[in-house]
Amino acid sequence: MSNSDFVTAFAPASIGNLAVGFDMLGLSIAGAGDRVSARKTKGQGVVIKEVRGMDGEIHPYLSGNSDENTASLAARSLWDAAGDGAGIELIVYKGVPLQSGMGSSAASAVAAAFAVNALLDESLPVEELLVHALAGEKFASGGLHADNVAPSLIGGLVLCPQVLLPQMISLPVPDGVSSVLLHPELQVNTAESRNRLAKGYTTDLWLAQQGYLAGFIAACAQNNVALMAECLKDVIIEPQRAESVPCFRAVQEAALKSGALGCSLSGSGPSIFALCLDNDAANLAVVMEQASRKMGYQCQSWISPLNAPGARMVD
Amino acid sequence: MSNSDFVTAFAPASIGNLAVGFDMLGLSIAGAGDRVSARKTKGQGVVIKEVRGMDGEIHPYLSGNSDENTASLAARSLWDAAGDGAGIELIVYKGVPLQSGMGSSAASAVAAAFAVNALLDESLPVEELLVHALAGEKFASGGLHADNVAPSLIGGLVLCPQVLLPQMISLPVPDGVSSVLLHPELQVNTAESRNRLAKGYTTDLWLAQQGYLAGFIAACAQNNVALMAECLKDVIIEPQRAESVPCFRAVQEAALKSGALGCSLSGSGPSIFALCLDNDAANLAVVMEQASRKMGYQCQSWISPLNAPGARMVD
Repeated sequence: MSNSDFVTAFAPASIGNLAVGFDMLGLSIAGAGDRVSARKTKGQGVVIKEVRGMDGEIHPYLSGNSDENTASLAARSLWDAAGDGAGIELIVYKGVPLQSGMGSSAASAVAAAFAVNALLDESLPVEELLVHALAGEKFASGGLHADNVAPSLIGGLVLCPQVLLPQMISLPVPDGVSSVLLHPELQVNTAESRNRLAKGYTTDLWLAQQGYLAGFIAACAQNNVALMAECLKDVIIEPQRAESVPCFRAVQEAALKSGALGCSLSGSGPSIFALCLDNDAANLAVVMEQASRKMGYQCQSWISPLNAPGARMVD
Repeated sequence: MSNSDFVTAFAPASIGNLAVGFDMLGLSIAGAGDRVSARKTKGQGVVIKEVRGMDGEIHPYLSGNSDENTASLAARSLWDAAGDGAGIELIVYKGVPLQSGMGSSAASAVAAAFAVNALLDESLPVEELLVHALAGEKFASGGLHADNVAPSLIGGLVLCPQVLLPQMISLPVPDGVSSVLLHPELQVNTAESRNRLAKGYTTDLWLAQQGYLAGFIAACAQNNVALMAECLKDVIIEPQRAESVPCFRAVQEAALKSGALGCSLSGSGPSIFALCLDNDAANLAVVMEQASRKMGYQCQSWISPLNAPGARMVD
């Protein structure tokens, strides 16, 4: 139980939906994330002091408006419920690109909830951290979807359907499989992207998607990589979002030709993920980057194990 | 490899949908099933010689029309593909009540395919048996839904989404859980019941159902009975079919009050199943029977382990 003056938490980026599990399946990423420092003040309420980049410079785009940042909103939710009435001041260090489909708003919310939790005399169970992080994340995504918050919080591959919240079900991950996450430099607004989706689907279509999700979860439990690859499909959401990321189809085609087990949009995009055998990951990242640049989009990529850790305290 | 003159196979009844997995999840039943005897003849084609009850008497309702029986249609599909051109004569012994929601047509199709397979010089892999049994079952259900055929064929709890056919994914079953299957004496026509279902659903509804299915499969893999119970729900199909089985809500209420982990229609009904802890099964069967009789429906029930065996050769 830390109750020091100044605490800092890190929460990783994440892949939402993971093709097969719209709004209910997510995967944590290694090497990209947000940090949030928190300290008690003599003031009142929870406020953001500064938003900085990971280089420590003041962030060029994000304002520190505490009413419009998932970090402060998550921290407020937690502190209002369990805090001691003192003021809280946050510094947010953004390592995840904005509107990238990499769970940027979720990473800020999780890191903030995780940091402020460390200022409590008695820390909260992880399900309560989820609830407060979601209260922040809701501002960005417009709904209670935990597929970024949950993996950012507990790490790994997480099943988190809305009907089962605040439960987070850690799924076993197949041996020898990695993720590659590519971020092409364009932005997609998650809430707007969501509003453009159809509101209903035919029975044939949702049964197909549900069949793939069910098969994917069974494949994970059985360490069956071939079945996992067969099921890593999105026949409902991806077709509606593909056009908003002009390089997506080129990157996807290149990835699938180079041994990816599957490739789709990360969250609402523009980021694109692939799962692949560990040995194929480095080459796949190069191939995906090349395809993106060929389409005119500068980009960056991350390779992660499927069991990349979730949020944690850092110095 | 049996190639004797006269072979007999047994295939069990089954619970289709299992509440949470419409068209893609099924469970085998112990103690109820169909038998099919097959022998080669000097004639041509596959024909049904007789349809009998399990008591050996000629069946009072089912004709032996070989063009309209899932047993002969399944056997024909298999024999046309892999047989030696000889004629085949079948005797079908019906142990599963007709139009009961207990997978009656599937049991006949599976037993027939299984029996005729034993007349081949080289038996077929189980996925091919599934394909031929489905070719028969299609006549009764009007589509390629394997949720009765697959568990009747390989036993246990089986995930078999249409998009993955002919794969059948055997799911691990939680320790200490049984099924209770109640058959009230009324009939529901599967194909008609299917045609009355809505053709599409809102995103909220299918995501809720998909979330329950995903959670159920994860729960099975993790031997998590509490999560299994939480997920054993049908928010899409059951509400549309409940009225066609007048005793359903009374039986369901009684079952849930008496410790059932979940209770819903078996297939399109009228049969009703519950999952429960082993120790609760005997009492639950009594309670469900009483509720059915109180509503004016005579009934019969079966208690099974979740890993009840599938089709097999019998003397």
